[in-house]
Amino acid sequence: MNDSRTVLTDTEQRIWLEAFHLEGGEPDEPWSIDKWTIRGGPGDGIDVIDIDNGCLSVSVLPTRGMGLWKARCDDLSLGWDSPVRRPVHPSLVQTADAGGIGWLGGFNELLARCGLASHGAPGVDHVSDAKGVATEVPVTLHGRIANLPAHKVEVGTDSDGRLWVRGEIDETMLFGPCLHLASTFATHPGSNRISLHDRITNLSGREAEFEVLYHTNIGRPLLGPGARLVAPARRVIPRNQHAADDIRQFDVFASPDVDYVEQCYFLELQSDDADRTLVVLHDAGGQRGLALEYAIHPLPCFTLWKNTMADADGYVAGIEPSTDYPNPREFERANGRVPTLAPGASWDAHIDFVALTTPEEVNESVARVKSLLGETSTRLVEMPLPNLCPAD
Amino acid sequence: MNDSRTVLTDTEQRIWLEAFHLEGGEPDEPWSIDKWTIRGGPGDGIDVIDIDNGCLSVSVLPTRGMGLWKARCDDLSLGWDSPVRRPVHPSLVQTADAGGIGWLGGFNELLARCGLASHGAPGVDHVSDAKGVATEVPVTLHGRIANLPAHKVEVGTDSDGRLWVRGEIDETMLFGPCLHLASTFATHPGSNRISLHDRITNLSGREAEFEVLYHTNIGRPLLGPGARLVAPARRVIPRNQHAADDIRQFDVFASPDVDYVEQCYFLELQSDDADRTLVVLHDAGGQRGLALEYAIHPLPCFTLWKNTMADADGYVAGIEPSTDYPNPREFERANGRVPTLAPGASWDAHIDFVALTTPEEVNESVARVKSLLGETSTRLVEMPLPNLCPAD
Amino acid sequence: MNDSRTVLTDTEQRIWLEAFHLEGGEPDEPWSIDKWTIRGGPGDGIDVIDIDNGCLSVSVLPTRGMGLWKARCDDLSLGWDSPVRRPVHPSLVQTADAGGIGWLGGFNELLARCGLASHGAPGVDHVSDAKGVATEVPVTLHGRIANLPAHKVEVGTDSDGRLWVRGEIDETMLFGPCLHLASTFATHPGSNRISLHDRITNLSGREAEFEVLYHTNIGRPLLGPGARLVAPARRVIPRNQHAADDIRQFDVFASPDVDYVEQCYFLELQSDDADRTLVVLHDAGGQRGLALEYAIHPLPCFTLWKNTMADADGYVAGIEPSTDYPNPREFERANGRVPTLAPGASWDAHIDFVALTTPEEVNESVARVKSLLGETSTRLVEMPLPNLCPAD
Repeated sequence: MNDSRTVLTDTEQRIWLEAFHLEGGEPDEPWSIDKWTIRGGPGDGIDVIDIDNGCLSVSVLPTRGMGLWKARCDDLSLGWDSPVRRPVHPSLVQTADAGGIGWLGGFNELLARCGLASHGAPGVDHVSDAKGVATEVPVTLHGRIANLPAHKVEVGTDSDGRLWVRGEIDETMLFGPCLHLASTFATHPGSNRISLHDRITNLSGREAEFEVLYHTNIGRPLLGPGARLVAPARRVIPRNQHAADDIRQFDVFASPDVDYVEQCYFLELQSDDADRTLVVLHDAGGQRGLALEYAIHPLPCFTLWKNTMADADGYVAGIEPSTDYPNPREFERANGRVPTLAPGASWDAHIDFVALTTPEEVNESVARVKSLLGETSTRLVEMPLPNLCPAD
Repeated sequence: MNDSRTVLTDTEQRIWLEAFHLEGGEPDEPWSIDKWTIRGGPGDGIDVIDIDNGCLSVSVLPTRGMGLWKARCDDLSLGWDSPVRRPVHPSLVQTADAGGIGWLGGFNELLARCGLASHGAPGVDHVSDAKGVATEVPVTLHGRIANLPAHKVEVGTDSDGRLWVRGEIDETMLFGPCLHLASTFATHPGSNRISLHDRITNLSGREAEFEVLYHTNIGRPLLGPGARLVAPARRVIPRNQHAADDIRQFDVFASPDVDYVEQCYFLELQSDDADRTLVVLHDAGGQRGLALEYAIHPLPCFTLWKNTMADADGYVAGIEPSTDYPNPREFERANGRVPTLAPGASWDAHIDFVALTTPEEVNESVARVKSLLGETSTRLVEMPLPNLCPAD
Repeated sequence: MNDSRTVLTDTEQRIWLEAFHLEGGEPDEPWSIDKWTIRGGPGDGIDVIDIDNGCLSVSVLPTRGMGLWKARCDDLSLGWDSPVRRPVHPSLVQTADAGGIGWLGGFNELLARCGLASHGAPGVDHVSDAKGVATEVPVTLHGRIANLPAHKVEVGTDSDGRLWVRGEIDETMLFGPCLHLASTFATHPGSNRISLHDRITNLSGREAEFEVLYHTNIGRPLLGPGARLVAPARRVIPRNQHAADDIRQFDVFASPDVDYVEQCYFLELQSDDADRTLVVLHDAGGQRGLALEYAIHPLPCFTLWKNTMADADGYVAGIEPSTDYPNPREFERANGRVPTLAPGASWDAHIDFVALTTPEEVNESVARVKSLLGETSTRLVEMPLPNLCPAD
C-alpha cells in the first residue's frame, strides 16, 4: 500500500475541499475515507470526516474541535442519544449562556474534548498579568476547544496501511491563552481500534497553564441496567455527598430514571510498567463493551460521570481521562493540579478507543484491568475529600 | 390537482436543496413555491421559502425559527420597517447581549415566534432539578426559538389545492428544555388567508413548562394615525402606569412620535362556542386591515404592544396571542399561568392571518368581533393589576 | 480609462458574487481587483476584496466591518502577527465573553474599526429612554462594528484611474443605536497611498451619540527596538501611572519583552491650516515607515498603544485617531467628548495610509510633522489627568 496525503482544509493555502473520497483495501476488507459537509439546519457548514476501516467506522468533526461524533464497529454503535440530536455549528453555541453552561447546547459527541485553557465547571477565575495585577475572568463550562473549527485538516494513508485524519486548531487571543492543538485519529484496516494522538503546544512567549479532559460518552446499547465500569482504581472518591450516598454501586449503572441527578466519581488508576492503563465499560451481560487504553502520565486524573436519566433526556455515562479534575480551574490550581507548558513546549496524549464486540474480547480486557490492579484493592472513599471536591 | 411533497432540508438524510421552484394553478390564478438562500451580508445562509397563492404571498424563514418574514396581498404589504432592515442569521444574534435583549438585533419579522422554554422580558429564573435543588438561570428576551434553524423543511401541495411549508425545530439541551416545534403554514390558491398550525411536543421524560407568544407586527401602510385595534375584549389591563395614563385611547394608534415610549395592554378576549376569537387591526379609514382568527383555548392571553415611535426607529404595533403574558417567567409561574406538558405530550395552536384588502372585508370582520362580544362591554381597568403586571 | 462599477453584494437585490476579477493598467503598471471568500476554518464565509494597484496591495474584509486586514507595498508588509493568526468570522466572536473582551478573539487586522455606538474599554453605561428613564447597558470592548458584515459591497474604477471598494453596514437595533456606515477605500495605480473615507449616518429619528476609533496596528518589520512614533503633539498624557513611569520614552519602541504590560498615551495633535495632521511610525533606522495623514476636526483624539510583548504574544503598536478617547463611554460623556448626530445627519472622516518605503520618504514625512509643530514644543504630562484618564 502506498503513502498518500490530501489536504482538505488549509486556510493559508486557500484550500478547502467540499467533498473527498478515497477507497482501497482488499476485496474482503475494503476501507474508505470520506469528507462531506452538513448543509441546512443547526449544523450547516460543519465538515465531517468519515473513516471506515472495513470493521470500525468513525465520524470526526474538524469544525467542532476535532471531536469524535460517533463510531460503529460491525453492528455495535458507540455514542449516545443526546437531547441535542445533531451536530451544532460552533457559531450557534453561545458558551456564556444560561450562566456559563451554553456549551451543553452543542453536546452530543461520543468524544467531546474539553479545554484547552480550562475545562470543568463554570465559575470565576483570577488571572494575573505580567505585572501581577489580577483580573476576574469568567470561565465557561468545558472551555472553548469543542467549538473551535480546525484551520488545517489532512487525511492520509501510510505504507503500513494506517488510515488517518489530522486537524490543527488555535485557541488563541491577544492577552489570553495561546494554545495549539494538533489532533490525529488513526486506525488500521480491519481493526477494532481507533488511536487518538493529541499534541498541545504553548504558542506564547510566557509559561501557560492548560487543562484537557476527554469526555467520552456512552449510551445505548452498551449502557443499560447492570452495565459496569471496570477500572484499575486504587481509590474512588465521590465528588459530593449525593455521589457518596451510592458509592458502593459506583461501578454499576442503573435503569433510566427520570428523577436521577448526575453522580461523579474521581478514580485514581493504576498503570503498568509502560505507563499504560485501561478502563472498560461493558454491557450487563459482558457481551460487548468499549475500552479506553492510554498512557496515564499525561492524564493522571479520571472521572466517571453517571447520568442515567430517562432515555429521552440523555441516558449516558462518561468515562473521562484528564490532566486534572473537572472542578473550577481556580480550585484545581489551588490544589496544584493545573499543568503548565513552557514557551513553545508541547504535551502529548495517546488514547486508544477499542470496540469490544464479543464476550471473549470483553473478558480479555477485564482480565487485563485486573492484572493492572494486581493485589491492590480498590478503596471506596466514603466522603468527598476537600482537596479533590469543592463544596457544592 | 395532485398531492406533492418535497423535502428541502433533512439533515439526517443529508438533504438540502439550494434552490427549488414549483408552480401550478389556472392561467388566471397561478401559484408558486420557491426556495432560495440569502447570500452575503448579515443574513448569509438564511433559507427563505416563498409561497405565492396568486393573491397572497408570504416569505417564511426556516433558518430563523420558522418566522414569517413578510407578506403581501395584492398591493397591501404586511410587516413593518424595523431598524434591522434585513433578516439576520441566528449565528450573529447574541441573545445575552445588552443585558439580555440581544434578540432585538434580529427582530424584523411580521411574525416572530417567542418561546419555547420562555418568552417575555429578560430576567433571572430559579429552576429546580429532580432533587429539588434550585439553580439561578438567566432568561433572555423572548427565548431561543426565533434563532434556531429548522433541521427538517418540507413543502407540498394537497389534492384540495392547499399549498404548505412545514418545518421542525428542536429547542433542546442536556439538563435543559427538550421541546420540539412542528410548524406548518398553509394557504389555498386565490385566498387572502394563511393558516399557521404549530405543534409543540415535550421530548423529555419529565413534565416540562413551555411558553409561546406570536409576536405579530404591523407597520405602514396599515398602521398610521387613527388606525385601530378591534378586539372582543372583556377587560383591558395596562401593563404599567405609563400605559394606564392612556388607557382610554388604548385601541387607537397615534402618529409617529420620536419621544414615544412603548405601551402594552393585556386583553381578555371573548370567543365563540367553537372556541374561536378574532382581532382586527385596520387603517384609519377602515379601508384595509389584518385579522387574526384563532382558537383561544391554547392561547388564552393577548397583548397589544403600541410602539408608535418615529418611522425611522420602528413605527409598529404588535398584536400578540400567547400562552401567558410576556412577563418574566418566574412572575408568570407564581401567578399560575405557565403551561406544562407531560412527557411526550403535545400542544397545538392554529392561527389564521387574514389580509383584509377592501372596506367590505374590514367591516365584515369588525362586525364579527362585535358579535363575539355581544352584550358584554369592554371594561378598561384603570391601573396595573398585581397578578398580571410585575412592578416596573 | 473607463469608469466601471460592479456590485459584489446587495442582499436586497439578491446579488452576491462568489468570485470576481478585474484587471487593467499599463504593461509596466498592472492593477487588479479580486474578490474571494475564505472557506474552511474559523474564517469560513468571510469575503475578501484584494486591490493591487501595482505598487500597493490591500485586503479589505467586508464581512468583518470593512476592516483592512493587511497591506503590502513592494516588499514592505504592513500589519502585525496577532496570536489570532487568521480572520475570524463574526459569528464566532462572542463579544461579551471573558468579561466583555471577547472582541479580542477576532482581533488581527492592520486596521480594525472600533465603534459605532461605542468603543474603548468594556463597562456599564446608563442610557435614558425618551421619558428620561435610565437603563444599565453593558458595553463590550470596542463595540460591534468590526463584527458586522456589510450588506452592500461594490468595487469600481474611476475615469482618473482610481480603484475603489465601498461597503455599507447597519449597526441597528430596535430600542438601540441606528447608525449606518458607508466606507470606501480607494487608491491610484502605482501609488503608495490608500485613502479611507468613512461616512457615519444617524438613521434614527432621535439625536444619537456615536464613537469611532481607527485601531491601526503595526508589528514587524516596521516595529522593532528603536522604532519611533513621530507626531505633532502639543501634549502627551499617560493613561495611567504605569504609562507615566515611561513617558520620557513614549515615542520609542522597545524590544519584545514577555513581561511587558501595555502602555497607552493620549496625544493632542497639531494640524495645518487645511485641518490636516500627520503621524509617522518608522523603523529604527528611519528606512521605512507608515504615515497616517488625516483631517483632524472629525478625529480630534489620538491614542498611542504600546504593546511590545513577546513576538509570539503580539508584538504590536497601535496608532489610533478617534472621535474621543477609548475610555468607558460613560466617562467620555461625562467629560463632554462623545459626539452626537442629529436625525439623518452624517459625519465624515478621511484618513490616508501611506507606505513609506525609502529613507527619503520617511525623512520627508518627518519634516512635515516638524513643520506642523513649528515652534510649539511637545509637553510631556507627568501624570494621568483626571478628565482624560479614568482611575484604574
